Amino acid sequence: MEMPRTPLDNFFYPSSVAVIGASANPQKIGHMILKSIVESNFKGKVYPVNPKRGEILGLKVYGSVLEIPDKVDLAVIAVPPKIVPQVVDECGRKGIKAVVIISGGFKETGAEGAELERKTVETARKYGIRIIGPNCIGVFCPENGINTFFQVRERMLRPDSGGIAFLTQSGTYGCTLLEWIAESPGIGVSKFVSYGNRCDVDEAELVKYLSKDPKTKVIALYVEGLSNGRKFMEAAREAVKYKPIIMLKAGRTKKGSEAAISHTGYLSGEYNIYQAMFKQVGIIEAKNMEELYDFVKIFSMQPLPSGSRVAMVSNGAGPCVFATDMIDTSDVLEIAKLSDETVEEIRKKIPAAVISTLVDLTGSATTRDYEIALEAIARDENVDIIMPFFVFQDTPLEEDIVDVLERLKRHGKPIIVCAGGGPFTRKMNRKIEERGIPTYQTPERAVRAVEALATYAIYRRRKILSQ
Amino acid sequence: MEMPRTPLDNFFYPSSVAVIGASANPQKIGHMILKSIVESNFKGKVYPVNPKRGEILGLKVYGSVLEIPDKVDLAVIAVPPKIVPQVVDECGRKGIKAVVIISGGFKETGAEGAELERKTVETARKYGIRIIGPNCIGVFCPENGINTFFQVRERMLRPDSGGIAFLTQSGTYGCTLLEWIAESPGIGVSKFVSYGNRCDVDEAELVKYLSKDPKTKVIALYVEGLSNGRKFMEAAREAVKYKPIIMLKAGRTKKGSEAAISHTGYLSGEYNIYQAMFKQVGIIEAKNMEELYDFVKIFSMQPLPSGSRVAMVSNGAGPCVFATDMIDTSDVLEIAKLSDETVEEIRKKIPAAVISTLVDLTGSATTRDYEIALEAIARDENVDIIMPFFVFQDTPLEEDIVDVLERLKRHGKPIIVCAGGGPFTRKMNRKIEERGIPTYQTPERAVRAVEALATYAIYRRRKILSQ
Repeated sequence: MEMPRTPLDNFFYPSSVAVIGASANPQKIGHMILKSIVESNFKGKVYPVNPKRGEILGLKVYGSVLEIPDKVDLAVIAVPPKIVPQVVDECGRKGIKAVVIISGGFKETGAEGAELERKTVETARKYGIRIIGPNCIGVFCPENGINTFFQVRERMLRPDSGGIAFLTQSGTYGCTLLEWIAESPGIGVSKFVSYGNRCDVDEAELVKYLSKDPKTKVIALYVEGLSNGRKFMEAAREAVKYKPIIMLKAGRTKKGSEAAISHTGYLSGEYNIYQAMFKQVGIIEAKNMEELYDFVKIFSMQPLPSGSRVAMVSNGAGPCVFATDMIDTSDVLEIAKLSDETVEEIRKKIPAAVISTLVDLTGSATTRDYEIALEAIARDENVDIIMPFFVFQDTPLEEDIVDVLERLKRHGKPIIVCAGGGPFTRKMNRKIEERGIPTYQTPERAVRAVEALATYAIYRRRKILSQ
Repeated sequence: MEMPRTPLDNFFYPSSVAVIGASANPQKIGHMILKSIVESNFKGKVYPVNPKRGEILGLKVYGSVLEIPDKVDLAVIAVPPKIVPQVVDECGRKGIKAVVIISGGFKETGAEGAELERKTVETARKYGIRIIGPNCIGVFCPENGINTFFQVRERMLRPDSGGIAFLTQSGTYGCTLLEWIAESPGIGVSKFVSYGNRCDVDEAELVKYLSKDPKTKVIALYVEGLSNGRKFMEAAREAVKYKPIIMLKAGRTKKGSEAAISHTGYLSGEYNIYQAMFKQVGIIEAKNMEELYDFVKIFSMQPLPSGSRVAMVSNGAGPCVFATDMIDTSDVLEIAKLSDETVEEIRKKIPAAVISTLVDLTGSATTRDYEIALEAIARDENVDIIMPFFVFQDTPLEEDIVDVLERLKRHGKPIIVCAGGGPFTRKMNRKIEERGIPTYQTPERAVRAVEALATYAIYRRRKILSQ
């Protein structure tokens, strides 16, 4: 097991965890959090803490952290807000340097809660304790088997280890994205942080930490309001040199900001200022939760393209008409103009093919037809990005198409698949994702993801040139 | 079994169907179409036609339609394009009044194909035959067990009977939407038409037909280009008095139009002209395929609201912050301002609740808490539309919440649920949809659907006033 080396490492790689407010009552949040940790394959020590003492889930319960005989790297706090400052003080006396406060009832509820939160932070600073939360679902690092979720496994899947880091002000969005990732083969999570009211550790610090984390390939954020815009910009500007940052901003309007204040106690700021920042720093904006998921998927799975010219191949052109509209109005993407050799080769070998803004192999297309067209396109120097569209409902197309796609990866160009439908289509999409190629059910979502990939590739080329 | 009464009835309620080009080879489209019909619970007679004669799937094969001893209401044609005009001529001599031409290779392939298509239409006109197609997947009417699909059931689900009619120029989009509907409990299809090149029967006629069809509650269209804009507008203007029309337009840009011509041989026309038409006539525009699905779902399941004021209740406010942004920038929707009595009642009975632009019951909310809040909101005269958001991952919320929602229906206000996640959340969403309430995984999709519902309600109120 890795040992914590930096202060933030305590949150993701603790050797020992105390759960303060652990309860014997399965209905209590303090019980569910303990259960979550115990049921993970966390290799460190776990110490339940509750003044009632006794035993929970086979573990000895301590009356306070001060009674724990060994060193504790991380404390997870799930007690009523009024006693949180006192509990944090005990953590300080014990020498604990990192706490996750799950409990709500602070700044988001008004003046009294804000005062409690201020006191909590003051206490933590005195001892050099770092805090994630309060009012959140905490941290998750599948690599180390640590998770502080009060959501039971029967109701919420945990994803495998992988390249995606997600920082979120909303625990709800956190649950949703984690489950979507868990159900997608070939992708997983490096670090997850739900920080709620964010009274101490903030996005800037976390982005800086993740930019140096070798396990993280892409950083995603759901933000209502940043604690310190300038500090975040500096951290992000440096991080995007190494890995993409994707951000979903909520609380864009006056009423949306009101909702945000009641949610996490933070003013959400002007949306247009955020948008200017995205462009200036090189952050990819996701317009909604599905885009955030679509984007982390493509960045986890595909290499960056060396240009923005897209070639589409299909056995049913409808979705490609829609995709053509989108590419044609995109500031970034363009339809690849296939070389004469490519066009000739496809025409000669597949007489039924109709070549316009796409290669339409028509409903009679077989795996072999796709292989001919896709290989010719992959070799074509006018093509940077390959988008195969499939109507898997059409029988002439055999299931071994997945092998053709896997072989296509050797060309080093990004491949993105679009295929919409029911159980059979989902089975095929799943097989393709198991081979490391992302799939999308609709052309809109596929093209938006490709646009994000190409946009970041442009940012990266510019960064490299300007250094 | 119903008997065809109008010319278009022959397509949906034929008493007998000939499949011309029926094949004994399971790999051939002509075999799959026959199999599709045989495996449906179609109660009429089915006649395979093939010059080789013999027997296919236990049915006697006729050398031509002229050899069939009985009356034939509908012919499905899947033969090489070159012989289609001759086959249609035989249909005419047999007295058949409706044909679906599945075969491609006509106008979409260039001048030669266009000439074949012209000849086919000319022949049909001579006999008073109506054509759907060519270059399509044809018709589907689950009520009567008729479907002309060459997609086998192992690869493509067929939805149950229900209130949704879908007209599509793209067979691919047809397959996708049908499967999405098939997997959604509580909704189904009245009539489906994939018309491809649309050489005869057009959208205007079909919309007129569907507007009078008692089985159809909502009409959806995927269109690249209309054959006759004025005629369509007239039909649509009349139809929207009785039921909503939802339309997805592709081929919006120059390059998109090029792709459309190669796809179905039609110029797609100016997108801004279409958008003006939508507003003028009262058609709801879907911006993409997922919206089309989301919209038919809400219209199939929910009553129209008497106003546009939305009340949200949640146990995890993140998605509601996003929804607030959307409602706040919507031209149609607004956040309901709850009456003082409602606010007081909720505050008194659920002290933990935070009321801002939504009622946030927080993560500790139980079914009973939701019931108190939802019932108070449903009684509130300031509320037209009820949007419960759920974090089903949170254990305090019990599974009997679905019963609370079902009881809530008696108030007659539309109810739309938003809950995102994995298998458990999908199970809960499914249970809710089985009770006739639509669910969406993200606030964006939920709010867009609500906006469509409220927009049509406004159209309807205006139509009624102006009559």
